Amino acid sequence: MVLTNGYEQNENENPLDILNLTELEGKAKAIIPTGGFGYISGGSEDEWTLRANRTAFQHRQIVPKALSNIENPSTDTTVFGIDLKTPIMMAPTAAQGLAHAKGEVDTAAGVAAAGGLMAQSTYSSTSIADTAAGGHGAPQFFQLYMSKDWSFNESLLDEAKKAGVKGIILTVDATVDGYREADIINNFQFPIPMANLTKFSEGDGKGKGIADIYAAAAQKIGPDDVRRIAEYTDLPVIVKGVESPEDALYAIGAGAAGIYVSNHGGRQLNGGPASFDVLESVAKAVNHRVPVIFDSGVRRGSDVFKALASGADLVAMGRPAIYGLALGGAQGVESVFTHLNDELKIIMQLAGTKTIADVKHAPLLDIKY
Amino acid sequence: MVLTNGYEQNENENPLDILNLTELEGKAKAIIPTGGFGYISGGSEDEWTLRANRTAFQHRQIVPKALSNIENPSTDTTVFGIDLKTPIMMAPTAAQGLAHAKGEVDTAAGVAAAGGLMAQSTYSSTSIADTAAGGHGAPQFFQLYMSKDWSFNESLLDEAKKAGVKGIILTVDATVDGYREADIINNFQFPIPMANLTKFSEGDGKGKGIADIYAAAAQKIGPDDVRRIAEYTDLPVIVKGVESPEDALYAIGAGAAGIYVSNHGGRQLNGGPASFDVLESVAKAVNHRVPVIFDSGVRRGSDVFKALASGADLVAMGRPAIYGLALGGAQGVESVFTHLNDELKIIMQLAGTKTIADVKHAPLLDIKY
Amino acid sequence: MVLTNGYEQNENENPLDILNLTELEGKAKAIIPTGGFGYISGGSEDEWTLRANRTAFQHRQIVPKALSNIENPSTDTTVFGIDLKTPIMMAPTAAQGLAHAKGEVDTAAGVAAAGGLMAQSTYSSTSIADTAAGGHGAPQFFQLYMSKDWSFNESLLDEAKKAGVKGIILTVDATVDGYREADIINNFQFPIPMANLTKFSEGDGKGKGIADIYAAAAQKIGPDDVRRIAEYTDLPVIVKGVESPEDALYAIGAGAAGIYVSNHGGRQLNGGPASFDVLESVAKAVNHRVPVIFDSGVRRGSDVFKALASGADLVAMGRPAIYGLALGGAQGVESVFTHLNDELKIIMQLAGTKTIADVKHAPLLDIKY
Amino acid sequence: MVLTNGYEQNENENPLDILNLTELEGKAKAIIPTGGFGYISGGSEDEWTLRANRTAFQHRQIVPKALSNIENPSTDTTVFGIDLKTPIMMAPTAAQGLAHAKGEVDTAAGVAAAGGLMAQSTYSSTSIADTAAGGHGAPQFFQLYMSKDWSFNESLLDEAKKAGVKGIILTVDATVDGYREADIINNFQFPIPMANLTKFSEGDGKGKGIADIYAAAAQKIGPDDVRRIAEYTDLPVIVKGVESPEDALYAIGAGAAGIYVSNHGGRQLNGGPASFDVLESVAKAVNHRVPVIFDSGVRRGSDVFKALASGADLVAMGRPAIYGLALGGAQGVESVFTHLNDELKIIMQLAGTKTIADVKHAPLLDIKY
Repeated sequence: MVLTNGYEQNENENPLDILNLTELEGKAKAIIPTGGFGYISGGSEDEWTLRANRTAFQHRQIVPKALSNIENPSTDTTVFGIDLKTPIMMAPTAAQGLAHAKGEVDTAAGVAAAGGLMAQSTYSSTSIADTAAGGHGAPQFFQLYMSKDWSFNESLLDEAKKAGVKGIILTVDATVDGYREADIINNFQFPIPMANLTKFSEGDGKGKGIADIYAAAAQKIGPDDVRRIAEYTDLPVIVKGVESPEDALYAIGAGAAGIYVSNHGGRQLNGGPASFDVLESVAKAVNHRVPVIFDSGVRRGSDVFKALASGADLVAMGRPAIYGLALGGAQGVESVFTHLNDELKIIMQLAGTKTIADVKHAPLLDIKY
Repeated sequence: MVLTNGYEQNENENPLDILNLTELEGKAKAIIPTGGFGYISGGSEDEWTLRANRTAFQHRQIVPKALSNIENPSTDTTVFGIDLKTPIMMAPTAAQGLAHAKGEVDTAAGVAAAGGLMAQSTYSSTSIADTAAGGHGAPQFFQLYMSKDWSFNESLLDEAKKAGVKGIILTVDATVDGYREADIINNFQFPIPMANLTKFSEGDGKGKGIADIYAAAAQKIGPDDVRRIAEYTDLPVIVKGVESPEDALYAIGAGAAGIYVSNHGGRQLNGGPASFDVLESVAKAVNHRVPVIFDSGVRRGSDVFKALASGADLVAMGRPAIYGLALGGAQGVESVFTHLNDELKIIMQLAGTKTIADVKHAPLLDIKY
Repeated sequence: MVLTNGYEQNENENPLDILNLTELEGKAKAIIPTGGFGYISGGSEDEWTLRANRTAFQHRQIVPKALSNIENPSTDTTVFGIDLKTPIMMAPTAAQGLAHAKGEVDTAAGVAAAGGLMAQSTYSSTSIADTAAGGHGAPQFFQLYMSKDWSFNESLLDEAKKAGVKGIILTVDATVDGYREADIINNFQFPIPMANLTKFSEGDGKGKGIADIYAAAAQKIGPDDVRRIAEYTDLPVIVKGVESPEDALYAIGAGAAGIYVSNHGGRQLNGGPASFDVLESVAKAVNHRVPVIFDSGVRRGSDVFKALASGADLVAMGRPAIYGLALGGAQGVESVFTHLNDELKIIMQLAGTKTIADVKHAPLLDIKY
Repeated sequence: MVLTNGYEQNENENPLDILNLTELEGKAKAIIPTGGFGYISGGSEDEWTLRANRTAFQHRQIVPKALSNIENPSTDTTVFGIDLKTPIMMAPTAAQGLAHAKGEVDTAAGVAAAGGLMAQSTYSSTSIADTAAGGHGAPQFFQLYMSKDWSFNESLLDEAKKAGVKGIILTVDATVDGYREADIINNFQFPIPMANLTKFSEGDGKGKGIADIYAAAAQKIGPDDVRRIAEYTDLPVIVKGVESPEDALYAIGAGAAGIYVSNHGGRQLNGGPASFDVLESVAKAVNHRVPVIFDSGVRRGSDVFKALASGADLVAMGRPAIYGLALGGAQGVESVFTHLNDELKIIMQLAGTKTIADVKHAPLLDIKY
C-alpha cells in the first residue's frame, strides 16, 4: 500500500482465484478508497442504462449446435491484422492508479500475458511510453480524448506512435461528462496525477473533478477530426461511442477504420439503449467494411459469445479488469482475462463452435426474458 | 415557520444543493405536514398510473448522434410566441401554500429566475395578481378549473387577463376528483384559503376536502367551453388532460390553441396509460398545428429530452418544483428548474443536439425494458 | 360470534368504512378461522393464474374522452331483461357460512340493497328459499353444480324456480376440484352444513373436504346438459367457466343464453390465462348474441370499467364481497358493492362516459406494462 | 444412514406426503450433504437458463375446453412402442448415490411402481444390470456419455442391451462440463464410485471432479456416432440436448429414432433459451417422424400438460425425483411420480382432455406474463 496525495493505492501482485467476474466488484470495493471506487463503478443519472447493459444480454439466446463434431475450440483471432489469443480486449479506461499503484503499466502486462489487446486511455495514470513498455511488445491501441488544443493532441499521437500503438481509438461519446452522482456524493477529485496531462499547461489532472478534466477536452468532435487524426498518424482510427447504424456509416465515411459500439459502460448518456441491444443493427450496417468492437456490460463467457455472434470482432471489458488490477496487479488482470476466456471456451464447445469465425456465424434466438 | 389554521407553513428561502429531483420527495416529506404532503405526492386508486408515468420513460431510448460536431447546447426556445430560456415549465398545481408560506408568489419568482414559464392554478393559495407580480413580468399562463357559475369563470379570466397572462390552460381531466386514498387516510381538509375562491359565495376552500372543492366545479366540459373561453379572453386556450390523438384533434377543432398531454400526474384517472406512452401518437396527430405541452412523471434531463423528441414543445413538472418550494422558497424552485435544465443540457450535448429544435428531430429507439 | 361444529362464525352487522377492496382481505383474515379463510382466499397449484388475474388488468388502458360534456354518470343497466342499479353482480360462491353466521341470506340482502344481482351457489350454506327471501324480491340467479344424480339436479332447479330466480348459471370449469394447497395444508373439512345437500343421500357437506364434495358432482358436462336444463327450467342458462371464443360459440350453439367468462378466480385450472386477457376475444366471438358475464380478479372501479369496455355486460366479484360479509354482514356486503360502484362512477366521469352503454363503447389501449 | 468415503448416504425407505414438487428441494437440502446437493441442484454460470426454464412455462397458457363431456382422464400412453401408465419419465441423471445409498436401483423401482419409463445414466452409481433389476422388468433406456475409448462405449452398450433396455439416449450437450459454480465453491469431488466406470482404466469416478469425468468423455460427437450406435445396438437412439429445429432434422437424418429437447436442466450451456420456449418449434420440425422427449424445469402438472400440448411425447424430470429418492428411497420416487401424475390428471380433467392424445391436440395461448 502506498499513500499518494492521501489516497491509498494497492500494490497487490498475485494471481486471483476467480469464481466469476461479478464477484470482483464487491471484493474490489473493500480495498479501493470510496472516491476511487465510486468513480470506477458508477454510471450516470439514475444508472438506468448501466443496468440495462446487463439485462440486455437476456434478449438474445445462444442456440447450441448439436452433433457439431468439434473439440478444443480456439479463441485465436486476427483483427486489424493483429493476431490475438482472445477476442477479449481491454477497454480504454482512465486513471487506473485509483485501483493500483502501478496502474496501466500492470494492466498492460496482465493483458499481454493473457494474449489480449490493450487500449490505453488519454487519462491514464501512467505515461504512454511506460504503459507501452509494460506490455512488453504486445499489441496496444491508444485512446484519444481530443483536447481543444490541437498541439496537445499531436503531442499525444506522436508519443503513441513512437510507442508503437497499432491504432487510435477516438472517443466521441464524452464531449461532456455524464451526470455521475457517485462522484458528486463523494466530492471526488482525482488524487493521482494523469501522466499525459503533466507536461501541459492545463495541469496534470490531480485534484480536479471529472467535469474539470472534460472541460479541457474538446466538446466539438466531427468527421473532420477523424480524417485529421487518420492522416496525421497514418494509423487506423476507431470511432468509439457509436450506437446506431447511421452513425457507423457516417464514421466510416469520415475515414474510421473501426467502429466501437459502446455507451461508455453507462457512464455518459443515461437513457440511451443498452449497447448489446443495438450491436446487431450496427454490425449489419457496417457489413464487414471495418472491424466492430463492442463493450458495456460484459461479465460472462456467454456475454462475449453473444456479442461476437451479434457482429462484434472484439469484445472489450473495463471495470472487471480494473477490479482485477486492484486485487492482484498484473497477475490479477491476467487472471480476469484468462477466467473470462475460459468461460468463453466452455460456451464455444457447448454451442458447437470451434473457432471465433464459427461463433460469428452462430445463430441467436430473440426471446426477451 | 408560520402556523396557519393550525397548519405549519415553511418560510425557507435558500438555494438548494440538489443531487437529483427524486431525492427531493423524501426531503420535502420531512418538513411538509402529513396531510399536505399526502395531497401533493399522492395519486388515485392504487397509484398504478402514477408509477407507470415513471417506468414509461424506459420504453423509448435516446440514440446519440456521434461526430455531431456541436458544443454548448442551448435550451432557448420559443413557444406560443414566448421566448423562454428553457422548455421546462411549471405545471399548474393547486394550493402551494401547503408547501410554503409564500406559495405561488415564490414559485412564480423561482420559475422566472430560471427563465421558465409559470402556470397558475385556479386553486392557488395566492391571488392571480399577487402570483403574477411574483413573476416580475415573466410569462405566465392561467389554468382554469371551470366553475358551474360562469360569472365566476369570467371574473377569474378578467383578473388573469388584467394580470397579463399569455394563455389559458383549461383542465378537462378533473371534472370529478380522482379517488385519492392518501387524502382519505389523512382525512385531509384544505387548511389554507384559496385566494381565488375567497370572494365568491362558495367560500374560500379552507376546511374543505378535495371532493367539496371539485363539487363546486363544472363536471360538464365540452367543446363549446373552449370556444367560449377563447372568445371571451382572446387568449390562446390550451386544453389540458388530453391522452389520445382523437381528443387532440377534437380539441383543436373546438378552438384549442395548444394541447396539453397529461394524466394529471396520476392523480385523476387511474388505469389510463402513462402519459409518455401516448405522447408520440398525440403529437403526430396534432402535426404542428398547435404547440404540445407534456407532463406527468418528469424527473430527469433524459425524461425531458425524450418528451421533446416524442413531440412535446414544452415539458412541465409539478411535484418536484413544489418540493423545491417547500425546501427553499423561490430560490428552491429556481434550483429545481436549473438543476433539471442542467441535466437536460448534458443529455443534449451527449446526444449531439445543439438546439431544442435538434432535440425535437432526434430519433428515439423503441425498446421496452 | 357463534360456534358451529367448533367453527367460529361471525355475526357482525354493520356498514364498513372501506378504503379499497384490497385491504378487506387482511381485515377478514383476522376474523375468519384459518381453514375457512384458506378455502375462500386460496387458488390452485402455485396460484400463478390467481395472480395473473390481477396483473392482467395492466394489459389494457382506459383512454379518457376529453371534452365529453357529461356529468352524473349512471351505472344503471339492463341485462337479461333485468333492471339493475349496477353492472357489478355477486359471483356465485360456496359456503358463505364460513365467513358469517347468516351466510348467503345476508349476502343476498346486501347485494339487493346495493341494487345488484345476486347469484346463489349450489353449495350455499343457506337454502335456496332462505337466500331468495334474504334478497326481498331483488333479482337472483341460481348456480348449479351438476350432480351425477339428475333427480337431485331437478330438485334444486325446482326449488330455484319456485324461489323466482331469473336464470341458471351452469358451472362447467369445476368437474374436479383444482389442486388447492391451502386446503391441504389446513386439512380443511367443511364445518358448516350446505343446506342444499342436507336432504339428499350424499349428506350435507359437513365434515367433507372439497374433493369429496366435488366427487359427488358430475364430472361429465356436455352440451346436452345445457339443453336439458334450459328445457327443464325454461330459464336462461348461463355457461360459467368459458375462456375461449370457440367454447363460447359451442355453448351458445348448445342453448346457452349467456356466457360467463371466468377461471373460477384462479381456484380451478392453474396455468390457464388470466380471465381478463381472454375476455375481449370471447366477447367479440359472442358478438352480442347473448350477454357476457365476467369475473376473476376484480377489485377496482377501473377493473370493472375495463371489463365492460372489453365486452362484459355484467362484472362479478366473489372474495371481496365475502370479506365484506365477514366484516359486516348484509351491511358489509352492501358497503363493498357501493364502494366498488362509487369507484366505477368516478372512473366513468373521468373517462367521459355517462352510461354503461358508453363504457361498453369506450376504446382501450393495449400497452403491456 | 451409511458413511461412504466420508459421505453420508440416506437409507430412507418410505412414501412421501407431498404438497408439491417445489417444496422437495428444501427438504432434500436438509438431508443431502452440501457437496452432493450443490451438484444435484446447481446450474451453470449465473444460472440464468436454469431460472428461465421455470418462467418459460408462463409464456403459454392452457385454454380449457368447456362442455367437453369427459371424465376420468387417463395418462396411459404408448411411445417407442412401449406402453406406459404416464407420459412422465425419469430423466437420465448421474450419481444418484449422492442422494441415497441404494441410488439408481431404488429410483428404477420407484419409477416402475409408478408406471413410468426409467432412464439410466452412464454415470450411475449402480451398475446397468443392478439398476435394470431394480426396475423388475419395467421399461428402461440407457443414456450414453460417449467415451473417447470406443471399446468402453461398446462394453456399456453390450451391457445395456443384455439388461434389456429399450433405447439408447445419446447425450450431445455435455461434451465439456458447464461452468457450475456450486461445485467449485464446494470443491466437489465425487465421493461415491460410478459403477460403470470401475472396470475401466480411467478409474471409477470416485474422488474426481466433474471436469475430470467429462475430460475422459468424448468431446467430439457427430452424426456418425448416432449411426454407429444405432447399428451397433439395433436399438432406437434418442439424441438428447437438441434445442433447435435444424438440429432435430440433422439428428434424424443421422439416424436418430427420437429427439430429446433439453438444456440439461440449465447445467450446461447457460445463455441458451429455456427448453420450453423452443419445444414447439422443434416438435413442429420433427413433425411426428420420431417421438419427442422434453425436460428442463418441469415441476407441475400444468407444466407437463403444456409440454405435451407443445409437441412432447414424453416429459422427463430429474431433480424432483432425486429429491424424492433422498427423502424416501424407491417409495419416495414413486410418490413424486404419482403426485405429479395426479396433478396432471386434474389439469387434464379441467382442460377437458380425456387422453394424452387429446392433450397433444389441446390449443395453447401465447400470452407472455
